[in-house]
Amino acid sequence: MNPIKFIIEKELEGELGRAGFLETPHGIINTPAFVSVGTKGTVKALTPEQIISTGAEVVLANTYHLYLQPGDEKIKSFGGLHKFMNWHGPLMTDSGGYQVFSLGAAYGKNLNKVVSITDPSLLISERSNEGDIPRLATIGTDGVSFRSHIDGSLHYITPEKSIEIQHNLGADIIFAFDECTSPTEKFEYQEEALDRTHRWAKKSLEYHKSKPNSESQALFGIVQGGREESLRKKSAEYISSLDFDGFGIGGSFAKEDMETAVKWVNEILPKEKPRHLLGIGEPEDLFMGVENGVDLFDCVAPTRRARGGGLYTNSGVINIGNARFVDSHEPIDRECGCSTCKNYTLGYLSHLYRSHEMLASTLGSIHNLYFIINLVKKMRQAILDGNFEEYKKDFLSKYKK
Amino acid sequence: MNPIKFIIEKELEGELGRAGFLETPHGIINTPAFVSVGTKGTVKALTPEQIISTGAEVVLANTYHLYLQPGDEKIKSFGGLHKFMNWHGPLMTDSGGYQVFSLGAAYGKNLNKVVSITDPSLLISERSNEGDIPRLATIGTDGVSFRSHIDGSLHYITPEKSIEIQHNLGADIIFAFDECTSPTEKFEYQEEALDRTHRWAKKSLEYHKSKPNSESQALFGIVQGGREESLRKKSAEYISSLDFDGFGIGGSFAKEDMETAVKWVNEILPKEKPRHLLGIGEPEDLFMGVENGVDLFDCVAPTRRARGGGLYTNSGVINIGNARFVDSHEPIDRECGCSTCKNYTLGYLSHLYRSHEMLASTLGSIHNLYFIINLVKKMRQAILDGNFEEYKKDFLSKYKK
Repeated sequence: MNPIKFIIEKELEGELGRAGFLETPHGIINTPAFVSVGTKGTVKALTPEQIISTGAEVVLANTYHLYLQPGDEKIKSFGGLHKFMNWHGPLMTDSGGYQVFSLGAAYGKNLNKVVSITDPSLLISERSNEGDIPRLATIGTDGVSFRSHIDGSLHYITPEKSIEIQHNLGADIIFAFDECTSPTEKFEYQEEALDRTHRWAKKSLEYHKSKPNSESQALFGIVQGGREESLRKKSAEYISSLDFDGFGIGGSFAKEDMETAVKWVNEILPKEKPRHLLGIGEPEDLFMGVENGVDLFDCVAPTRRARGGGLYTNSGVINIGNARFVDSHEPIDRECGCSTCKNYTLGYLSHLYRSHEMLASTLGSIHNLYFIINLVKKMRQAILDGNFEEYKKDFLSKYKK
Repeated sequence: MNPIKFIIEKELEGELGRAGFLETPHGIINTPAFVSVGTKGTVKALTPEQIISTGAEVVLANTYHLYLQPGDEKIKSFGGLHKFMNWHGPLMTDSGGYQVFSLGAAYGKNLNKVVSITDPSLLISERSNEGDIPRLATIGTDGVSFRSHIDGSLHYITPEKSIEIQHNLGADIIFAFDECTSPTEKFEYQEEALDRTHRWAKKSLEYHKSKPNSESQALFGIVQGGREESLRKKSAEYISSLDFDGFGIGGSFAKEDMETAVKWVNEILPKEKPRHLLGIGEPEDLFMGVENGVDLFDCVAPTRRARGGGLYTNSGVINIGNARFVDSHEPIDRECGCSTCKNYTLGYLSHLYRSHEMLASTLGSIHNLYFIINLVKKMRQAILDGNFEEYKKDFLSKYKK
């Protein structure tokens, strides 16, 4: 039995975009949809009731973080992540690949070198060329060895291990283990990395299909390939050829490459399966993605920005720390229907932010999530109503990046 | 017209305790009641909806903090504190006296010396005897001069000024300006300070009565006198003789002195007016206070403790940082009906706390406020049911301090 069912209700004429819905074991996601990020099993500063109040239909948690703390087996012993975090709607987990590499890259700089080894502990003894900085992540043929950013403990993640962790967490939609490369890497490295991602995709899928969890959890394969047209197309074709329930589009994109990459990929991916553009969430990118056939997006920006005082409005992001808001009796955005805009002035939010009160983060996160989630909902409605292009033009003409 | 109406429904036989209710312009407070503290115009880490979910009927904000940031006139320009903070139930503000002295005492040690001056700026140029630490607060005959703990700016608060600030904030119940002394001060100093508190009480009341705000805001006078029986009784008699709407009982109490002081005072205060024991909130002290005729309590302990990981249970306070909770599938307290206990395990709370997630503070504060507020509600019910003594014995036999 298929754990998810994807229905397309309407397509954008002459474009790849579409509106529909995705049935999961924990409820329906109307697509296109923005997925709220709950990194460590909590959308920062919000209760599940507050998450629901933003219009959120789905949450994505990070496998890497939960594997390290409190541990996937512990979460399994609590009945899985839904129950553990008290989120009873659709839930996704990423594969952990992105964090393994990005946290590694943040420390060891010159890593991502491939070595061929059988004993994972050997990998960690490698040092970067730049002085004596220990590598946090080292890539082997079969997996990645890395040290925990929390306690320095040694870990080795293979495609099978990533899926096993995600089975323990029990989300409705999980992802194949992949390597996310930097856009600055050379073609040769991108090609090698892509081959690994493809091998790991097949292994992830085989392991997943061999387990009963494949009846209740959907597995998405991830398309990589950086900014290279040939690699993106090759990846879309290969990943499409495998029996995944849907697809992720990964990559650390340079802004100007994103649209072409998404187009190359979505022209190839089978229309009838859902597509998730990983880690993207700025308004202009959401329009681009929706127009080009993306069904799901996730990004930490709305909640992270809110904690730093950045708040979305129809005319762009404002910073609540700005002195001009201290006396303002206006809400963040007059057109916004979120509970923060209905009940609080910029003046009060300014006071909370200046007083370092936690409520500033909570009220700001409610607003930002509502804003971004409802922006994508409006795009969906515009597709259904046949006026996506007008809506996009109208919104972007007012919104300053 | 009287801004509040206090009705006693039942009294404890042979004791001072009573159950009733207090009607305010923004709703009814069933008494005895625990008042949630929202220092800077927000109960830390909670939205007003979450405050209500704890059973809270009333919030107390701090005049000192709001006067300094964002300023009482600013809050007035926003339509008053109720509207500014989106709390539409009964609201109290303290007089600012306690913070002026406690923040002063925390810095200058050897202050609280009285000088007689007319120019408040002279006060601040005084230095403590212990080296070169500038005094943050210096007491004059007519008021207190202090420097802001935020930006070092100079301020001078008189009884009239305190009431003016509280009129600008617009709470339903406000307090007379008083001096809260340390229990270690000598009798002579306590006596002098009490004379000041009494003069300031009269001035506070006269200023209040001269303004139309006295129609919509109730003013409570504060009884001081430290641990001295003669001073406590003198203070209760004097403050009773003035036309206050209710009374506060102030003081930095040594635990063992609290009960005698409350008794001395409440035997004298007129029965028909409400009494608020300021800054007290531990379970054993709440029983003592209720038994001895206290109607209202406020304390930062429930929310402050929660942020530090301390959580109330029927057998005492636990610390969520303790390793034994990591694997616990139990709620904080099986008998608790709060939303945290209904939806989350100790294991999950432990994970949030260890991961430094804000949600740990939110869920912990919801639980602690619910616990303390409902403890006082149960005391109220026990008075109405005629079994207060049994309830007290039963609770305290299980609860370890």
